[in-house]
Amino acid sequence: MAILASNDTICAVSTPAGSGGIAVVRVSGPRAVAIVGSRWRGADLSTAASHTAHLGYVLGNGGNAIDQVVATIFRAPHSYTGDDVVELSCHGSTWIQRQLLTTLTDAGCRLATAGEFTKRAFLNRRLDLSQAEAVADLIAAESAAAARVALSQLKGNFAKRLGELHDRLVHLVALLELELDFSEEDVEFADRTELLALAAELQQEIDTLTASFSAGNAIKNGMPVAIVGQTNAGKSTILNALTGDDRAIVSEVHGTTRDTIEDVITLGDTLIRLIDTAGLRHTGDTVEAIGIKRAVARMEQARIVIWVIDATTDSATLTEVAAMVVPRCADKQLLIVINKTDIATADNVLGAVRTLAPDADVITMSAHCSDDINRLRESIARMATPAAALDGNAVVVTNARHHAELTLAGEALRRATAAIRDGISGELVAQDLREVMDHIGAITGTITTTAILTDLFANFCVGK
Amino acid sequence: MAILASNDTICAVSTPAGSGGIAVVRVSGPRAVAIVGSRWRGADLSTAASHTAHLGYVLGNGGNAIDQVVATIFRAPHSYTGDDVVELSCHGSTWIQRQLLTTLTDAGCRLATAGEFTKRAFLNRRLDLSQAEAVADLIAAESAAAARVALSQLKGNFAKRLGELHDRLVHLVALLELELDFSEEDVEFADRTELLALAAELQQEIDTLTASFSAGNAIKNGMPVAIVGQTNAGKSTILNALTGDDRAIVSEVHGTTRDTIEDVITLGDTLIRLIDTAGLRHTGDTVEAIGIKRAVARMEQARIVIWVIDATTDSATLTEVAAMVVPRCADKQLLIVINKTDIATADNVLGAVRTLAPDADVITMSAHCSDDINRLRESIARMATPAAALDGNAVVVTNARHHAELTLAGEALRRATAAIRDGISGELVAQDLREVMDHIGAITGTITTTAILTDLFANFCVGK
Repeated sequence: MAILASNDTICAVSTPAGSGGIAVVRVSGPRAVAIVGSRWRGADLSTAASHTAHLGYVLGNGGNAIDQVVATIFRAPHSYTGDDVVELSCHGSTWIQRQLLTTLTDAGCRLATAGEFTKRAFLNRRLDLSQAEAVADLIAAESAAAARVALSQLKGNFAKRLGELHDRLVHLVALLELELDFSEEDVEFADRTELLALAAELQQEIDTLTASFSAGNAIKNGMPVAIVGQTNAGKSTILNALTGDDRAIVSEVHGTTRDTIEDVITLGDTLIRLIDTAGLRHTGDTVEAIGIKRAVARMEQARIVIWVIDATTDSATLTEVAAMVVPRCADKQLLIVINKTDIATADNVLGAVRTLAPDADVITMSAHCSDDINRLRESIARMATPAAALDGNAVVVTNARHHAELTLAGEALRRATAAIRDGISGELVAQDLREVMDHIGAITGTITTTAILTDLFANFCVGK
Repeated sequence: MAILASNDTICAVSTPAGSGGIAVVRVSGPRAVAIVGSRWRGADLSTAASHTAHLGYVLGNGGNAIDQVVATIFRAPHSYTGDDVVELSCHGSTWIQRQLLTTLTDAGCRLATAGEFTKRAFLNRRLDLSQAEAVADLIAAESAAAARVALSQLKGNFAKRLGELHDRLVHLVALLELELDFSEEDVEFADRTELLALAAELQQEIDTLTASFSAGNAIKNGMPVAIVGQTNAGKSTILNALTGDDRAIVSEVHGTTRDTIEDVITLGDTLIRLIDTAGLRHTGDTVEAIGIKRAVARMEQARIVIWVIDATTDSATLTEVAAMVVPRCADKQLLIVINKTDIATADNVLGAVRTLAPDADVITMSAHCSDDINRLRESIARMATPAAALDGNAVVVTNARHHAELTLAGEALRRATAAIRDGISGELVAQDLREVMDHIGAITGTITTTAILTDLFANFCVGK
């Protein structure tokens, strides 16, 4: 690898900004123990064993004590970064935090850039790139599912899967190269049928990983759930009931288009992005094309569509709205909510609904009944949690960069397969296969560039 | 002591609120290691030595990993609280922090109340009450002087001084009681002159400590500095130059009265509260009583008064304003700034100023010259830094509760002295002296009540 670990010693506040009971200043690099030791009154740190904690005072430039702290020593390579690390747990005044950084930099440390501790862990081979990215994801995790997928990635499950993929690609290339070496003798060592079968297996593996990004992205950024239906079906009441009562509301995401506001809530293990849509008009002629278009566009962003139906609606309206909703939900999960069962029986529309959308899940309920709202929550939670999110070792692609590399790997493999099938020279096929390997390698960082690294770690917070 | 340490195990996030690189969840109590151990995958914590750090996973209710963390073990009594403590350093997502608290409370922990870790340290005699209060002060420290005084208090310097005071009081009481025991024999064992000398020494010690609160309060909450002078003397320009350029502005304190805004800046080691005042009118008759009253009231809050004089001012005006300022600065430090030396020579007024305020420091300057402003800053910083603040072992009272107890102790001692002098029965004198000891004891917590403790620790942040 062309990118070498830098040799200086860095420091930063690793805990959240602001004041609190305690704060942690992290120091990492070959001189970490020596630099802290030069501003230290307490037990001798230079001889302290790895993974031990020591009470003492950190001194300022004048030799006066800034604070009483606990210094925990992690010796290379058994530290987060792989270098010597000292973590100073100080009283959490912002002023003290600043003073510690000042005395450390005056003693020879450099302030760490964003993500630099994790970058060093990568450069020291303590983590591969996908694991480093998992650290950022863990810090940003807002739901159990997101944390679990990130933790699985941090544990190296994803890297292991990619490693296996890489090994099988190497095997495929080796078979091809064997053929190349003996090509003049006109012996076809690599049975092309065998090669094709191997390539097909790999293709399926890569395509599965690529496809998992859709679920992975939903796990990480929230599962998009659109609520659609005619006006006055009770959409707003349901939306408010789902969000308003929920103590777990995380934030409000301002929509990218038309100032719409999405609500983000946590249901069960999963982050849900609730997407509100304008009511679908039911009278053919007066339907405003724009209104429909918007609702449809928002519906299309969703992975789950909740179609709210007024139990008192007539069958003509029902059929009309169904024509707008059902065909557009072929690749989504559709949940039909027959609302207002407190004023009408669901039987009026149930039969028609079963006919119009035979594959959809159906709930009959009243938005004013909290038990019913809870049943709705459970249904959404069940639909929204991808099976993979429940498995602590599942491999799900959650990172756009990984998705992009996997997509390119898949394309290159498709080209290679076509070339094998068309009897094109092994040399050219091997070139395509090497491209596949490069894209897979870029994910874990076996193949990488300074630009990728700079970009990637710039998105980290300082102190990690 | 009637207040016993509680026996349960508590937990809280000790680092600042919000998300960051890492966060620390602290667990303290007899079952700390067992509870963390019951939600742990990694090296066996139950046999881990004190002051050692261990990498592992904290598990949720379902047994799935929530996060990879470093657990640092501190065994009783060698921990912050004096109980067994486990500090979990986790990835700093707020979601992960919440999950760790959830899994720990489900496993038998209780969420800690504000300041409860420090309260336990007090109840376990790891800290006395004045040291516990110093912890809160350290967390709130906004300047070097404030941190230094708090750290000195945390080191126990204040408690040591109070301890000595207590011992000498005990000696005094013992002498008196000796007299009481033999009173029927009409022998005056305790030489009353000796008693009076001893009491006078103690009185001086207590009064010195009590008086140090004025400086101590300024160190902790900012030294109040009022800028006064006639209108158009350049007060506003100087105020803006002092605050505007200063990168160390800490906050804006909204005045308690009349919506005035004070600026808090750090000069050198010291926090300064700059108090703006309305311009003093110089024509006797038209002086508005209200305007003067306000400026005077604000001047009287200050410990340092900066009187800004226009170098072009006439001597009648100067004399008139001096009459408003100088007599009110008898117990303050007065710094006279002769401004506008860029348009007039300071000599015009310098002689008159020296006569009107012979004890004041004088600076001649132009508020438009940054070198001059820097000289002004240095002068203020020098005046504002109490000598005690520069000494890491100095004992300065910074806490209003301590000041109140010392004041009461001083009064009781004065009563005792008067009683000794008046030849009043030793029994009554001893009662006064015991009251002195009780007030001294209340500071360090040898004498304390649940109400004091509840009040005191409620002001702490959770997690400390």
